[in-house]
Amino acid sequence: MQEPHDQRDNILTAVVDKKDKPLFTPGPLTTSSTVKQAMLRDLGSRDGEFIDVVKKIRAKLLQLAGVSQSAGWESVLMQGSGTFAIESVISSITPPEGKWLVVINGAYGERLLKIIECHEIAAEAIRCAENELPDPVAIQDALKTGRFTHVAVVHCETTSGIMNPIAEVGALAKAAGCVYFVDSMSAFGGVEFDFSACEIDFLVSSANKCVQGVPGFGFALCRRTALEATEGHSRTVSLDLLAQWRGLEANGQFRFTPPTHTLLAFARALDELEAEGGVGARAARYQENHETCIKGMRAIGFEEYVPADLQGHIITSFLYPTDNFDFEEFYDRLNNKGFVIYPGKVTKADCFRMGHIGHLFTADTEMLLAAVEDVVGEMNLSLV
Amino acid sequence: MQEPHDQRDNILTAVVDKKDKPLFTPGPLTTSSTVKQAMLRDLGSRDGEFIDVVKKIRAKLLQLAGVSQSAGWESVLMQGSGTFAIESVISSITPPEGKWLVVINGAYGERLLKIIECHEIAAEAIRCAENELPDPVAIQDALKTGRFTHVAVVHCETTSGIMNPIAEVGALAKAAGCVYFVDSMSAFGGVEFDFSACEIDFLVSSANKCVQGVPGFGFALCRRTALEATEGHSRTVSLDLLAQWRGLEANGQFRFTPPTHTLLAFARALDELEAEGGVGARAARYQENHETCIKGMRAIGFEEYVPADLQGHIITSFLYPTDNFDFEEFYDRLNNKGFVIYPGKVTKADCFRMGHIGHLFTADTEMLLAAVEDVVGEMNLSLV
Repeated sequence: MQEPHDQRDNILTAVVDKKDKPLFTPGPLTTSSTVKQAMLRDLGSRDGEFIDVVKKIRAKLLQLAGVSQSAGWESVLMQGSGTFAIESVISSITPPEGKWLVVINGAYGERLLKIIECHEIAAEAIRCAENELPDPVAIQDALKTGRFTHVAVVHCETTSGIMNPIAEVGALAKAAGCVYFVDSMSAFGGVEFDFSACEIDFLVSSANKCVQGVPGFGFALCRRTALEATEGHSRTVSLDLLAQWRGLEANGQFRFTPPTHTLLAFARALDELEAEGGVGARAARYQENHETCIKGMRAIGFEEYVPADLQGHIITSFLYPTDNFDFEEFYDRLNNKGFVIYPGKVTKADCFRMGHIGHLFTADTEMLLAAVEDVVGEMNLSLV
Repeated sequence: MQEPHDQRDNILTAVVDKKDKPLFTPGPLTTSSTVKQAMLRDLGSRDGEFIDVVKKIRAKLLQLAGVSQSAGWESVLMQGSGTFAIESVISSITPPEGKWLVVINGAYGERLLKIIECHEIAAEAIRCAENELPDPVAIQDALKTGRFTHVAVVHCETTSGIMNPIAEVGALAKAAGCVYFVDSMSAFGGVEFDFSACEIDFLVSSANKCVQGVPGFGFALCRRTALEATEGHSRTVSLDLLAQWRGLEANGQFRFTPPTHTLLAFARALDELEAEGGVGARAARYQENHETCIKGMRAIGFEEYVPADLQGHIITSFLYPTDNFDFEEFYDRLNNKGFVIYPGKVTKADCFRMGHIGHLFTADTEMLLAAVEDVVGEMNLSLV
């Protein structure tokens, strides 16, 4: 008799255990080795053990927001990247006669608008500069016209790192009787906020942000009454939020093949978030990463793009320090030293970004700063 | 100074190394340990090393089909499950005035139709029984009317395990001047066929089928001229096939966060497929799994649903052996012995299914058969 699958030698040589560079990016980000090890299993998507994992994840996501199913909340997991989860919500919850007001101060706000318009849904935008907060009076005035059914805003605009006032916008949306949507992609799980007080109806984030899982799915936290009111509005099969929720509720299974390994990693990541001390402790660590970073970068001669009092602790945009700054060279030299940073995304200024989230600690940021100092010297940048 | 991230003890105890049950399912399926180990890395999605992985995957997928970019073919990877990739193609390639002819003999054919209709695209179906092949004369007669712009068929209908005549349908589609779409989800990489001779314009499969990766994305192989002709037809942002292709071509990157770990696993899986001897060798192994399975199951007293000459070697539907057969008990008892099989999906007969794909060998099937024999005894089924 031949050997079964689990007693066989591997066909190729073993996978090399490469040491990865820490990722100072907005994600995919550095995860713990144990989160990755949780993927070393193959579970059937209809298996009882896997169904329990999905159930636990859905419950813990609500716990992270300080809400529960019995208090009227639902969490829905959606395959794909975070953008797929956003499109799932937008394309599933808007009636044909709906109209969105989108509050925009960065590329991710623009993306919300693009998705809405792609589905031929009516929308207007209120825009402000990428390093400024939206004007509440302008939002209120727009909503007073009564033209809108839905309001959307990005929580931490990853474009710049600015933290938007989601409670304030929520109060205005609620006063106007609108459904309120928050894209909390890069903030949820890493920023303390009173979810219930924000009047949110739908919030979206993804597996590979502050919960520190690996990429492969996103999730929506939904006020059940708002979700149930969306019957018949979905414009796709795959991204149908209501059908996905009903499928998960009916038998604990996804309608279409779930990323089983990614979900195992995420369940582990949720345990590790809890063990770290929850969102408060994680936010404090990110805050420390952020403060260490800006303090060190300022000492080297860099400046942030967003004013300090508007800046979140998720990711920071730094202005190019000189007119002829060669970012590609700066990036490559840091990369060669083993550190991955991120290009800029704001439109009105030349910036690059450094992320503070993921399984990274002050010591990692200090090593990054030492490398930045070396690279600045190598590039003969006279900054101070 | 504190420890950086890679010198830290894990917060929780190490992940338990559980022994997984072999999955005799259509996927997610059993993968090699080295495919899973390839996920023990965090790569940035804009990192050069990761971009090279994506490039290699896209080229190797074309190689598997025996075609190449220089011969006019493109491979496009799409986040989400296989169904997301199917919806990506359908919703991205159909002009407003397009009309599909869908050849249906199972649930996955019905799903194609459902997706088409969800996007308010015109369609007609040609249906036959789930254990019969579609009638080429009926297809030809329908196409002769000139009403259709697109033709779709499922390659291996996973509902039953029947293998559909994709070359024959392709010839009819081509003669009628239609764009030809093949859902080869469960067959591609595990079934030998002459891709070029089938007149395919778009073929879809997913990461966690016969290439033996883990779930998290699907892919489309596209005739470039057909893909380029779809400008402006996409009905979504996330699932926009043409934009996804252009993004991958422009800088090697995904437009939205890719499942980096899943892609690393898939790159490894492609290497292992090559090392096994390519599609021919893999198909031969699956064929042996299949033959071992049906021979053993027949000896125990089970019968297949699909006639043997129409049956593929991917998955087999077995009829319930008695009128009052308790499948749940049968499934649970096998599960408790460490074997995962799959419920049935055909509509006109009570069946269950056993898959033959994944990192499974004859010895695994023989152990499954021994367990089936035990369970038949425990359940006092008098079959022979």
